[in-house]
Amino acid sequence: MAERVIRLGLAYDGTGFRGWARQTDPRIRTVEGVLAERLEAILREPVKLSVAGRTDAGVHARGQLASLRTSSSIAPERVQRALNAALAPEVVVLDAAEAPEGFDARFSASAREYAYRIDERSVPDPFTGRFVWHRPGRLPLGPMREAAGSLVGVHDFTSFCRDPGPGRSTIRDLRRLSIVRRGDLIEVRAEANAFLHQMVRSLVGTLVAVGEGRIDPSAMPRILSAGDRGAAGRPAPPHGLTLERVRFGRRAWEERRF
Amino acid sequence: MAERVIRLGLAYDGTGFRGWARQTDPRIRTVEGVLAERLEAILREPVKLSVAGRTDAGVHARGQLASLRTSSSIAPERVQRALNAALAPEVVVLDAAEAPEGFDARFSASAREYAYRIDERSVPDPFTGRFVWHRPGRLPLGPMREAAGSLVGVHDFTSFCRDPGPGRSTIRDLRRLSIVRRGDLIEVRAEANAFLHQMVRSLVGTLVAVGEGRIDPSAMPRILSAGDRGAAGRPAPPHGLTLERVRFGRRAWEERRF
Repeated sequence: MAERVIRLGLAYDGTGFRGWARQTDPRIRTVEGVLAERLEAILREPVKLSVAGRTDAGVHARGQLASLRTSSSIAPERVQRALNAALAPEVVVLDAAEAPEGFDARFSASAREYAYRIDERSVPDPFTGRFVWHRPGRLPLGPMREAAGSLVGVHDFTSFCRDPGPGRSTIRDLRRLSIVRRGDLIEVRAEANAFLHQMVRSLVGTLVAVGEGRIDPSAMPRILSAGDRGAAGRPAPPHGLTLERVRFGRRAWEERRF
Repeated sequence: MAERVIRLGLAYDGTGFRGWARQTDPRIRTVEGVLAERLEAILREPVKLSVAGRTDAGVHARGQLASLRTSSSIAPERVQRALNAALAPEVVVLDAAEAPEGFDARFSASAREYAYRIDERSVPDPFTGRFVWHRPGRLPLGPMREAAGSLVGVHDFTSFCRDPGPGRSTIRDLRRLSIVRRGDLIEVRAEANAFLHQMVRSLVGTLVAVGEGRIDPSAMPRILSAGDRGAAGRPAPPHGLTLERVRFGRRAWEERRF
């Protein structure tokens, strides 16, 4: 039977996972690991997942997209039901569908959007605490927005990256870095063609350092050109970060009906 | 030194607890158990907590109130900071203050308000899944509200109670039982002078059975007078239930700034 491509829209609470990527040690629990293990039992064949956003340990997703090739003729809806029966609500398959030949979640994605949420209240909230960074005290958005404005664009983001790896490009197109206050939360939205390792957390940590007066907003061009992680602020903790959505080709955002 | 009363405003995620009440077996993790253990280390004396709403296993609280008597002269704010440093965000002390002599969270409370949340979407949501009952499909609110209207008032709620215990009154004043739809959630709000064991969950389970057409809304007076738990619907699962707030004496609701 000819191979088909199945795409899976995913949401997950990253708290209990050591990130997306499956590890050779099966005791290390990862999102890809639990999904692939279940898929292999359902499809009765080895499964390799491709993913649009390779989230780190503790990072969440509301609009993640993964894809796989299979020689099974199973209906995508059955795959969705079987995965949800085993893994929801920690990991949820929002939708499953056959994708056109050649579709690959990682290589077909043309942009990713992340949200980072900061809780400014004096005490944390058990109902949102898994998904926000509790940092008590009001941050001034003006200087943070000024700094964010200098970071948007096509730049070498080495200063905002952990271990780029040799020979890999560190140039990214940061298309949006907005900061809004929603009630007691600050929400930083970052959109780029792709992100480097820990890039959003490094951007947010730097913006918070600006808000705290430890870095001047005018220093952003100098930090970018330093090409040195020590020049930027410390990365914000992972649990405030959520992959919100993924864009494909020239098409509109993949909107999760969710 | 004279004894003082300290009151603690609390919020917690009940997922990881076998309810409020401390157990003699210390391996059984309860909200009172972790709080009292920490308080005994801070105050260096045995601690007995009184609580306004004795929540069951898996039930959450946003506006719980507990009180304790202590011969320590420690400032309540220090107690709050020490507890939050150890237990937040799973259990959070929203505020701590000295209370008037004679105040007791259980006996001074004159009313409790709970919210029960039902998620009607086809797939669950990892970001709210710990705090809502995922029950896919739209429920008709009209018949459910008709049934709720017949349950409000001073009644013997034996049919909506698990194990009342011998000689205990099963009469309660249910002052409100409202049902609203907020986005994809149904929110049932129940307010009474006090609730019997599993009473809110039994009320909600019965309302859902009405919504599903398995019980007629006109059957409520008959179910009440049956005095038999088998006449009502099955209790809804615990994790959709949250103690929202507690009222004291004639005073307004204790509003948590939260």
